[in-house]
Amino acid sequence: MTTDAWVNETLYAAWGQRFRVVRELARVRSDFQDIMIFESETHGRVMLLDGVVQITEADEFVYQEMLAHVPLLAHGAAKRVLIIGAGDGGVLRRVLQHRNVEKAVMVEIDGAVIRLAKEHLPGIAGDAWTDPRAEVIVGDGIDYVQRAPDASFDVVIVDSTDPIGVGEVLFTDDFYANCARLLTDRGLVVNQCGVPFMQADELRETSLRRKRFFAEVSAYVAAVPTYVGGLMTLGWSAKAPGLSATPVAQIRARAEAAGILGATRYWTPEIHAGAFHLPPYIAEHLPAD
Amino acid sequence: MTTDAWVNETLYAAWGQRFRVVRELARVRSDFQDIMIFESETHGRVMLLDGVVQITEADEFVYQEMLAHVPLLAHGAAKRVLIIGAGDGGVLRRVLQHRNVEKAVMVEIDGAVIRLAKEHLPGIAGDAWTDPRAEVIVGDGIDYVQRAPDASFDVVIVDSTDPIGVGEVLFTDDFYANCARLLTDRGLVVNQCGVPFMQADELRETSLRRKRFFAEVSAYVAAVPTYVGGLMTLGWSAKAPGLSATPVAQIRARAEAAGILGATRYWTPEIHAGAFHLPPYIAEHLPAD
Repeated sequence: MTTDAWVNETLYAAWGQRFRVVRELARVRSDFQDIMIFESETHGRVMLLDGVVQITEADEFVYQEMLAHVPLLAHGAAKRVLIIGAGDGGVLRRVLQHRNVEKAVMVEIDGAVIRLAKEHLPGIAGDAWTDPRAEVIVGDGIDYVQRAPDASFDVVIVDSTDPIGVGEVLFTDDFYANCARLLTDRGLVVNQCGVPFMQADELRETSLRRKRFFAEVSAYVAAVPTYVGGLMTLGWSAKAPGLSATPVAQIRARAEAAGILGATRYWTPEIHAGAFHLPPYIAEHLPAD
Repeated sequence: MTTDAWVNETLYAAWGQRFRVVRELARVRSDFQDIMIFESETHGRVMLLDGVVQITEADEFVYQEMLAHVPLLAHGAAKRVLIIGAGDGGVLRRVLQHRNVEKAVMVEIDGAVIRLAKEHLPGIAGDAWTDPRAEVIVGDGIDYVQRAPDASFDVVIVDSTDPIGVGEVLFTDDFYANCARLLTDRGLVVNQCGVPFMQADELRETSLRRKRFFAEVSAYVAAVPTYVGGLMTLGWSAKAPGLSATPVAQIRARAEAAGILGATRYWTPEIHAGAFHLPPYIAEHLPAD
């Protein structure tokens, strides 16, 4: 089956990863972006948006676990969760693993991503699409947060592309101001902030922006194999300070109560707590307190 | 200056990283391996051995700091350090930053690596080559550890290639048995164990082997940008158990005394302690206690 065809990721002009392609599964120009899904030899199925790797079957657990479990368990009593983007359904699945979550609303702008993920990457979301606690909206995240009532969510998870193209509006003052408004008092937002070794501007600029609307702005790290370039940062913006320093024992107790403990391949209570300790080469891009 | 030439890393047959080449600086077939050094557009100068990235100027600090500072500060009173491999001199430089180190012996089998690193990557080793505490030997690490007196070193750092080609003998029973013998009672060995997401066998097999000669066998992690594939593991083999769990405050105090605190870009006391907490996908490859 193997061909000599390779896909080169085009995120960076002069460095990047490449995959040998077993079989192309989809190549679609949607209303918003180029979507490509292929079967790789090494990483299972891989989805690219505008030439940038979004997810592979082999390593999706790292990103999804860290993006979903960290904010929910740091909050400790999150019942209503808003997910922006994440059209593959992987974050939705991890959020719904928390038995105390009552409602998860997912707003993805590109219905073609959802359709193609359901067809070609069904294992990523699993049964999440039909969970009665899930509400999946194909629409604009910006519009959604503008219209959402005050204090209507406990956690917002922004699983966007980098701040170029369709994802750019998810990094604006208007977006963050509405996130702060629609969150409860103990609420927080996490968002993907890129790989600082290659994209330090992304962390620096979005952190400064988020600082205008949240009491505590920081970041935590995850080593996602196919977000190449070392540690990626996940942005942390909390209305109440201190949740990022929740002790390991408390995180463990919450994870046990939520049904998460022992159900992960990357996340653990110790990794959760440790992820907020940033190497100096990353910490230097965060705003001073 | 930029050409359209790319270098594809050949470590894995069907996935990997590629660099756009500004200028090739050296391409040598030594007695042991193919050595290539080039100027990249994104990562400064890059050295490959047999097609595998060994070091880039841009991210070498991650690997060197974690390979040198973690064992020395976990030990707490290391005076004599043996380095196997690491012909670029980067580990030697980090070891000699510790003001309590009295002697660092470096044994590199391939003199051509040292010569080319001095010529093309002078910033990696800095002044380490001429430090009066350094002894640099071009020779076989296997022979050296066989001849070394009992209890003559406190820490051994093995900065080898993967267990193929010239580095293969550094993963044998004979080598580890001699390491155990030449170490003092509190002594320990660290060695590079690959990227488990891609090379789990390497961690599993070398850990089992090291377990025959050391009281505590474990691993700690570092996210090295150009050792692509997520977290890499550094193997930990200690004659005395417990050093890997040294509290953060004690590590910090030792780092301050050694002159390391504040002089790093990746290592911190918290990252040191956190690095021993492995994600389940990695921990499952270590031998059970």
